[in-house]
Amino acid sequence: MAATERILASARKQIAEQGILGLRVADVAEGAYSSVTQIYRYFGDRNGLLARVLGDLYQEFLEQSLQSVADRLDGLDVVTIDDIVDALPSPTHDWMRINSGMRLQILATAVTNEELRNRVSLLAQEHLRRWNAYIEDVSSRLKQGEALDSRVFTIMLVMQMAYYRHLLGDDGFSDAEYRQFLKDKLRA
Amino acid sequence: MAATERILASARKQIAEQGILGLRVADVAEGAYSSVTQIYRYFGDRNGLLARVLGDLYQEFLEQSLQSVADRLDGLDVVTIDDIVDALPSPTHDWMRINSGMRLQILATAVTNEELRNRVSLLAQEHLRRWNAYIEDVSSRLKQGEALDSRVFTIMLVMQMAYYRHLLGDDGFSDAEYRQFLKDKLRA
Repeated sequence: MAATERILASARKQIAEQGILGLRVADVAEGAYSSVTQIYRYFGDRNGLLARVLGDLYQEFLEQSLQSVADRLDGLDVVTIDDIVDALPSPTHDWMRINSGMRLQILATAVTNEELRNRVSLLAQEHLRRWNAYIEDVSSRLKQGEALDSRVFTIMLVMQMAYYRHLLGDDGFSDAEYRQFLKDKLRA
Repeated sequence: MAATERILASARKQIAEQGILGLRVADVAEGAYSSVTQIYRYFGDRNGLLARVLGDLYQEFLEQSLQSVADRLDGLDVVTIDDIVDALPSPTHDWMRINSGMRLQILATAVTNEELRNRVSLLAQEHLRRWNAYIEDVSSRLKQGEALDSRVFTIMLVMQMAYYRHLLGDDGFSDAEYRQFLKDKLRA
């Protein structure tokens, strides 16, 4: 493994264990059999290291989110609105809470880390283009008589933060209510 | 001003200047003519201080968000769907970017600060109850023939994070597209 890869792997491990705030470059260096000086040479500073590691993580989240939907719809020649909604993740699932908690921390870091913000911004724009292309593909396979309002993806879902649902606890909407809402609103 | 109020005012000032991550209890103490020992006596530790200050800020954000809508609709005897949508804030406004950047940082802090998370959770639940009551009030004043799908508030808007719109830059939807979408989806 190259030095930069060892550093990135060590930084990920540190973030998983200590959180983003607790990341110390000296600990990353130790876990990578590297030095603080070498890390600064590759990534500029702590912010540069965070921009790279958190940007990579964010990219993986976005790719997984599209892939998990595609995996469930790709086998179908004819797709219904119900199929699409059933393929979307539930905001109340445990892994959504963990995943959205991490996304929240990455975005919050991006507010004050310009390098990370630029990377995340480009990723979000690329992600939107890929979703648009995917929605077009799915629309071409829609069951006769059904039509899709793509704005539910490009306006509503693109701004959705599942962590809010987690904060509402038992007072929040149920998965069934969420899916019914999406089905009603997705129908054009 | 009492000692706790001076400490809270100093902590807010520090957060506005240095951000949440940069908050040092020693600086807060200095700005409040207090001491680290005294701050720990009142708030337990740095996390306890953050829970109080950020919880207060979050409460103010939530109250302002309902109040700004109420201010625009309270004078109307008869309310239309268009009135309601026009009273909602635009995700692209500058103050929404700043406001949502701060909300993002508070929520991200809550992921690892249990005391803050419990406070924000209770605030979110209370906020939902108040919105529900407000929607009922507005619904009773709706123009004859119009009906409101309250799920747009209790499912869609409750999970909306305007910071995503900011990240999309020029690739994102416009204010006009956003308002048209809300108008279409709010009609029951």
